[in-house]
Amino acid sequence: MEGSDPMPDAVKSGVDAAEARFWTGNHYNEGGFQEEIFDKAKEECGVFGVFGHPDAAGLSYYGLHALQHRGEESCGICASEDGEFHYHRGMGLVKEVFDRDRLGALKGDRAIGHVRYSTSGSSKLGNAQPLVFKYRDGDLAVCTNGNLVNEPVIRRELEEQGSIFQTSSDTEVIAHLIARSPKDLVEAVKDAFARLIGGYAFLIMTKDRLIAACDPNGFRPLVMGRLGEAYIFASETCALETIGAEFVRDVQPGELLVLDKDGLREERFAKMERRAVCAMEYIYFARPDSDIYSVNLHSARKRMGQQLAQEAFVDADIVTGVPDSSISAAIGYAEQTGIPYELGLIKNKYTGRTFIQPSQELREKGVKMKLSAVRKVVEGKRVVMIDDSIVRGTTSLRIVNMLREAGATEVHVRISSPPFMNPCYYGIDTPNPADLIASTKSVEEIRKAINADSLYFLSKEGLIDAVGGHDGEKNRGLCLSCFDHDYPTKVEFELAKATSCSCD
Amino acid sequence: MEGSDPMPDAVKSGVDAAEARFWTGNHYNEGGFQEEIFDKAKEECGVFGVFGHPDAAGLSYYGLHALQHRGEESCGICASEDGEFHYHRGMGLVKEVFDRDRLGALKGDRAIGHVRYSTSGSSKLGNAQPLVFKYRDGDLAVCTNGNLVNEPVIRRELEEQGSIFQTSSDTEVIAHLIARSPKDLVEAVKDAFARLIGGYAFLIMTKDRLIAACDPNGFRPLVMGRLGEAYIFASETCALETIGAEFVRDVQPGELLVLDKDGLREERFAKMERRAVCAMEYIYFARPDSDIYSVNLHSARKRMGQQLAQEAFVDADIVTGVPDSSISAAIGYAEQTGIPYELGLIKNKYTGRTFIQPSQELREKGVKMKLSAVRKVVEGKRVVMIDDSIVRGTTSLRIVNMLREAGATEVHVRISSPPFMNPCYYGIDTPNPADLIASTKSVEEIRKAINADSLYFLSKEGLIDAVGGHDGEKNRGLCLSCFDHDYPTKVEFELAKATSCSCD
Amino acid sequence: MEGSDPMPDAVKSGVDAAEARFWTGNHYNEGGFQEEIFDKAKEECGVFGVFGHPDAAGLSYYGLHALQHRGEESCGICASEDGEFHYHRGMGLVKEVFDRDRLGALKGDRAIGHVRYSTSGSSKLGNAQPLVFKYRDGDLAVCTNGNLVNEPVIRRELEEQGSIFQTSSDTEVIAHLIARSPKDLVEAVKDAFARLIGGYAFLIMTKDRLIAACDPNGFRPLVMGRLGEAYIFASETCALETIGAEFVRDVQPGELLVLDKDGLREERFAKMERRAVCAMEYIYFARPDSDIYSVNLHSARKRMGQQLAQEAFVDADIVTGVPDSSISAAIGYAEQTGIPYELGLIKNKYTGRTFIQPSQELREKGVKMKLSAVRKVVEGKRVVMIDDSIVRGTTSLRIVNMLREAGATEVHVRISSPPFMNPCYYGIDTPNPADLIASTKSVEEIRKAINADSLYFLSKEGLIDAVGGHDGEKNRGLCLSCFDHDYPTKVEFELAKATSCSCD
Amino acid sequence: MEGSDPMPDAVKSGVDAAEARFWTGNHYNEGGFQEEIFDKAKEECGVFGVFGHPDAAGLSYYGLHALQHRGEESCGICASEDGEFHYHRGMGLVKEVFDRDRLGALKGDRAIGHVRYSTSGSSKLGNAQPLVFKYRDGDLAVCTNGNLVNEPVIRRELEEQGSIFQTSSDTEVIAHLIARSPKDLVEAVKDAFARLIGGYAFLIMTKDRLIAACDPNGFRPLVMGRLGEAYIFASETCALETIGAEFVRDVQPGELLVLDKDGLREERFAKMERRAVCAMEYIYFARPDSDIYSVNLHSARKRMGQQLAQEAFVDADIVTGVPDSSISAAIGYAEQTGIPYELGLIKNKYTGRTFIQPSQELREKGVKMKLSAVRKVVEGKRVVMIDDSIVRGTTSLRIVNMLREAGATEVHVRISSPPFMNPCYYGIDTPNPADLIASTKSVEEIRKAINADSLYFLSKEGLIDAVGGHDGEKNRGLCLSCFDHDYPTKVEFELAKATSCSCD
Repeated sequence: MEGSDPMPDAVKSGVDAAEARFWTGNHYNEGGFQEEIFDKAKEECGVFGVFGHPDAAGLSYYGLHALQHRGEESCGICASEDGEFHYHRGMGLVKEVFDRDRLGALKGDRAIGHVRYSTSGSSKLGNAQPLVFKYRDGDLAVCTNGNLVNEPVIRRELEEQGSIFQTSSDTEVIAHLIARSPKDLVEAVKDAFARLIGGYAFLIMTKDRLIAACDPNGFRPLVMGRLGEAYIFASETCALETIGAEFVRDVQPGELLVLDKDGLREERFAKMERRAVCAMEYIYFARPDSDIYSVNLHSARKRMGQQLAQEAFVDADIVTGVPDSSISAAIGYAEQTGIPYELGLIKNKYTGRTFIQPSQELREKGVKMKLSAVRKVVEGKRVVMIDDSIVRGTTSLRIVNMLREAGATEVHVRISSPPFMNPCYYGIDTPNPADLIASTKSVEEIRKAINADSLYFLSKEGLIDAVGGHDGEKNRGLCLSCFDHDYPTKVEFELAKATSCSCD
Repeated sequence: MEGSDPMPDAVKSGVDAAEARFWTGNHYNEGGFQEEIFDKAKEECGVFGVFGHPDAAGLSYYGLHALQHRGEESCGICASEDGEFHYHRGMGLVKEVFDRDRLGALKGDRAIGHVRYSTSGSSKLGNAQPLVFKYRDGDLAVCTNGNLVNEPVIRRELEEQGSIFQTSSDTEVIAHLIARSPKDLVEAVKDAFARLIGGYAFLIMTKDRLIAACDPNGFRPLVMGRLGEAYIFASETCALETIGAEFVRDVQPGELLVLDKDGLREERFAKMERRAVCAMEYIYFARPDSDIYSVNLHSARKRMGQQLAQEAFVDADIVTGVPDSSISAAIGYAEQTGIPYELGLIKNKYTGRTFIQPSQELREKGVKMKLSAVRKVVEGKRVVMIDDSIVRGTTSLRIVNMLREAGATEVHVRISSPPFMNPCYYGIDTPNPADLIASTKSVEEIRKAINADSLYFLSKEGLIDAVGGHDGEKNRGLCLSCFDHDYPTKVEFELAKATSCSCD
Repeated sequence: MEGSDPMPDAVKSGVDAAEARFWTGNHYNEGGFQEEIFDKAKEECGVFGVFGHPDAAGLSYYGLHALQHRGEESCGICASEDGEFHYHRGMGLVKEVFDRDRLGALKGDRAIGHVRYSTSGSSKLGNAQPLVFKYRDGDLAVCTNGNLVNEPVIRRELEEQGSIFQTSSDTEVIAHLIARSPKDLVEAVKDAFARLIGGYAFLIMTKDRLIAACDPNGFRPLVMGRLGEAYIFASETCALETIGAEFVRDVQPGELLVLDKDGLREERFAKMERRAVCAMEYIYFARPDSDIYSVNLHSARKRMGQQLAQEAFVDADIVTGVPDSSISAAIGYAEQTGIPYELGLIKNKYTGRTFIQPSQELREKGVKMKLSAVRKVVEGKRVVMIDDSIVRGTTSLRIVNMLREAGATEVHVRISSPPFMNPCYYGIDTPNPADLIASTKSVEEIRKAINADSLYFLSKEGLIDAVGGHDGEKNRGLCLSCFDHDYPTKVEFELAKATSCSCD
Repeated sequence: MEGSDPMPDAVKSGVDAAEARFWTGNHYNEGGFQEEIFDKAKEECGVFGVFGHPDAAGLSYYGLHALQHRGEESCGICASEDGEFHYHRGMGLVKEVFDRDRLGALKGDRAIGHVRYSTSGSSKLGNAQPLVFKYRDGDLAVCTNGNLVNEPVIRRELEEQGSIFQTSSDTEVIAHLIARSPKDLVEAVKDAFARLIGGYAFLIMTKDRLIAACDPNGFRPLVMGRLGEAYIFASETCALETIGAEFVRDVQPGELLVLDKDGLREERFAKMERRAVCAMEYIYFARPDSDIYSVNLHSARKRMGQQLAQEAFVDADIVTGVPDSSISAAIGYAEQTGIPYELGLIKNKYTGRTFIQPSQELREKGVKMKLSAVRKVVEGKRVVMIDDSIVRGTTSLRIVNMLREAGATEVHVRISSPPFMNPCYYGIDTPNPADLIASTKSVEEIRKAINADSLYFLSKEGLIDAVGGHDGEKNRGLCLSCFDHDYPTKVEFELAKATSCSCD
């Protein structure tokens, strides 16, 4: 791997090993769908809630559709009509799971909904959210985005006390804690949350209340809006925009918002600890038209690109971004350097879950799946290729090679985030640390592994500056633990849980 | 209704009211299927289990297929491979829910499976069985056939203790009771069953055991067989026959059979109380090629027909049965009387769930759905029409009229069971008592309501004699409560539950 | 095969060879369904037409549903609304292909419809009927039941003249002949039919006419009925009964009935040649509640059983029929002999196209698919087993063995038709003559091959007498060519076509 | 409409009328899918062919996937294995219609495939291509992209000669012409094409040949490539790139390329008439990574944007493009003017055929479907919005209003093509001329109708210059008839056909 060979064997075999995962990774899960493992930290989940609108389920449909990028595997909506719950969940995209009849049956003026990303192996309809339970006070629907570090500990305790579980979801644990508390619902929820360690946004619906909550560090975004008299909750502001709702404010770390017939009650179940908003939300996850703590994501990413240009200018003919997530940063890089921004890479927008992957033979012969390089644009050009992150490195190598085969004379890779080195405990699905290329290789080694002429990762400081807009804290309230191993919460437990979203 | 008019208005409006239910009763349930409400006590559920065969799920598939008549709405199989559970459940028939891939994925040498009948309103995938839980000792799969009278009482208690429920199934209650017991599994199961009142057959699978149990009165049939070294459990012997297994014995009332690596252990959780096998199993539910307590159903039904002929001979030209369930009794009636047995009524075997019901207008014009009378067979004939039961009376009226329109000069109705007057608490889905025609009308009134020339119901004694084969008890170990209101268990509770199978 | 071994090797290997076909014969056709090859001459097709009813497509739905036994593979309806054609076709049963929306879209007061049986290898949606064409005078829809012997000759001629074909159906040939004729439609149809040799029933719909026709020998049944003012055509009377229509008369051999705004016009395109109604319609195909030339099928089959009893009485304990098609004959045999008629064999009514066939291993272990013997009924008994025909013999062997394994001490097979020895050219799908067991073996050899204690086939004369009811011709107007090789039409051509229904 | 009101009533009602179409335009077609009518000239169709590759169907799958933007309604592939044709067609996207089994069954080393766009009303599986026929020399498969102006005339003639048609497709007409010719296939094809007037690309496959042809004006693109020894044909070069094939050359106007066992034969069926490549291919249809006559589409569109900036500069704060088709032009406009390029509009990439459209009420409340404006990006900004065309104007109005509601202080619309005023006869689905806003309104009137602060359409000369790269002809070989009414072929016929792709 250290050789000077421009495309050493190890690189190829590195590709092959990764590719092997790529192809064998395709499998039919229980819901009947075929899934592709791609070299990205995976998006986690999204939640959406409505209180006080006659078509609460309809709004949820459009809201969840706007949050679809946060989870493509399954989705669900639970509506409440005078305390009677109607719900439907299914495998697939929002537009696939619901038709007019199914949606029309979800009557009521309150609803919570969920889109779920799956880790391989747990693609089951049974894990689709919201989970709906019956407990002593009636119906209880819960959905969540994030991960509870100490979920296995609590689950073990609950099992010892005789609890049974039908899913592997954190959400079910919460429901047990709530149901086992002898207190009033709001107090029970507070008690339950006080036991949790991790990063999460929760929506809870009972026959007479809707509760929204955010973990004490604020890892996962959750916003509140208004649409006429109705209250809306959503993982991202783009969902508010989609339904024409007005943004009111972010749900604060440690906060518990309770809606019932008396309106909104703002409570806390914990004081805010060090604010630690997931940096990957800014870098990659959230939609560019969303704002987190009033910072627009497209603008933040553009600033990351500008910052990257300042830190690592390279003379080149064109700048291109890896679609779709790196477009904003590429625009920023181009604007800062004056190098023209071009569509050097095109993504086939029709690729999806059910697409048949090419055979090994066809792939070796050059069949592309998702991305193509645009020969006429890159031929004979020195290319700056902007990407948002490198996880395993295999996709980067593929894209660099694709650009070279299309005639690029030089390929300079610029990454709009620092090297991704540590597993996440707060809801991002990360590979085994051994598979994180930055945890085992130097930047120069990565450069060789991805066959680039040069490679630069945005500095942590540059990232913080680009996000900007936060208070005076040194890291401006971001969780950067995947880059710097500085975990905002305790993470060591007898039974720790990492690398997956809590809804698994 | 008391008038001498051969087809009084009340009859017609009776039809219309019933028909209204008929047509509006069609609805799309959550699984997307359309259901037809027919004038029968509904079949309940069936269970099947395998211990010690390399293709346990495959056998379950064929076994459940043989039990399909016990429940057409949903089905499922859970297999265990070295303690790892694989399961699949879905809405629809066994042949619809499973394909080769899904079935092939259910690896393991143990399995339990279920076919489920639904009451309207609870047609949900979430209620499909087996239910699979995680508890302190690992995985737990449960399926059941029957009904627990005191389920609401226990559920209330469990909720007060902090339990949460995801289904409305009795099965989930059992799982909670088991998980909450601090004792060893077998003792925990015994304790749990000791609390239950009702009629049920249970199959329970854990990582190392398979348990079969039958309620202390033996309401619901459950048999054990062997296939080579493997043990098989099934609701009916026809499922043993289908897979080529040998019948060993009926599971006795109050008995608990435990299979693990040490083989079979025969235990009891209760002494047998008064044996009370559901008479409707003999009359209508079970397949004619099954045996219950070694009494073959076809033969028993034929004896019912013979008995009916002795009790209520009528001079006629032909005997015909309402297909499919009354064929055996009709053959018996014909054999006893010497009147030729003919196919006077033909059932369209392709009718099913997704069939589009004719519009009111087409129906009025005479469009038939399921049954047709065979004009050339019945024209100018005095017909004895044998049916197994009358529930609401609406279907009987339709069939009698159909025979008359086809030219029958007389239609004499003979029913191979006593009048159905009382709700069932042990697993049969019965209508509201007010809708049971025999609970509000005399035999003569029913005769008029169904437009028959004569009507006779088999006597209770005749029924008991026809079933025969049992021990010396007066009623030979049958539950006849739907005929005589003599319920074998306590049925009054603050929260009683009737008229549905426990798996709802 | 000639040995005295009660179950010689050849028998077993005969089974195996057949079984091999059985299992490898399962395949996914283009429509996505799995098909089972069973040892029966296959049912062919059914047609249904309506002229002058506001819900013509709705009636066709129920009519085709009643004819479903004539073809389960695909179906279709084409309705005409003021000359505008609306049609839908699909793979599967009527109830599967149509839903309310699809059926509701077929507006118009005229319609023709079709159910199609497929031969293996040509299971394509493209072959589903009615075929709908555009020609110089507008739309043309055609559907047919039967087979044209000289279709390949005509097709070759048409191709030489520049015709193109999209299907392998006889129906398309007819459409070409009609479109190429310069004459008026009715004359063009007559000319076209004058060229055809074979057995067929046709329904043709144009913008202003509906035409029904039957071949000059009357091989395939076709009847006319009235429902109020509307005219109805159907392959069998049971479809008239189902929709409440009144039977008017059979369409006569060589007859052409034309319906247009002026009402019914009765024409002929050929004089009736020797009448030759397919005997297999009487023996096996048509529904027992249908009448052909006013002979009821149940009654005719019962007479076949009675005749069989007279020709081949055997002392036995019970008579049982192979369900469903041999029930009537078994009743007749029992009635004639006084031996009790019993349900010794039970068919699983849920088996169907998508059912997963058991693996070789499971089958060897005794897993049954469709039929089970009822142990308690046959155990220790001398059984007379009535079947309607023996084609390859493999199924008969399976059933005889099944009865023996269930304890029958003797199994006497009685077949309600003569030995099936010759291929059919008129619409029945028959195997390669070499696979017709009666074409290569004597009755005694067949008896051994199917492992029966005795075997008897109904005599040709007995069959003719049992059908009865016809005119004074010696064979009473039946086509018995599959038994006696006396083909009513020329069948030798350079390019002959046999053993399939014309709609393939 | 002429008033000075910034948002006059007529504008609103214009919206409403258009919206009405929008919502009522959603319908279920025969294939069961829901379609949305959007304000764009619709993409037409795409063809793909392989000769000489062992996995011809597999390559076609990936090639058609790359051409999916040319037709989303139905698709199909026909492969030839030693002259035996295997094909599959279906409604939906390539990834939906084919699964591994279906694709795997299409064996052979030659294949042709098609993606089809549908006009409303003709969404039928029967129209899916390739169409496959049998004619005197065996099988014949044909697929096409484009439109034949004189198809109705030829069809009428063929009908008069006795031809029958099963589809409304131009493709079937060609097959008839070929089959009716007494000549050798290649001569027959030449004769057939000599009769056609229109714009088209054809692929024809017989048992031993594959033929590709392009109309004499070259309206529709068709390219040839090589992949190893195999020949590839595709509507666009992006499909070559996707499968790793090398571009060889464009198929020339009037050219006929024949592949058989002797390799490639280059013939002509007509001399090239005035070259007239569809300008809309450059402006909007083709993928940005494709080249037509060696002009890259992204680059050409970027030049259109630059040209637009030169012709109609406006002082503004940001430039944004309407995704996805106007991105390249927006980048060009930004680069030329120095105004920053931003993502002011975001498209939800998950929207598709089955998406449930919001109710009138939700829409009025602001629910967005496909596009959202990014508030933080446009708020308080003067926006230049680049779009590629205006057809009805309704979508432009929606987007302008969306930008205003998100806070844009000014919205200047720049269109990268001239006003679209005339129907297309060569394969673009255009609305009724009365619905083309530019055919009835002046630019100033359109500006008001879409509520823009300023509006400019690219000049015809500017468009020609931007496409560039062609020979010395005045209009550089483009068909600009939709802008200037200068149709390159005769278009007046007794029975003319316009506004649809020939494959309808």
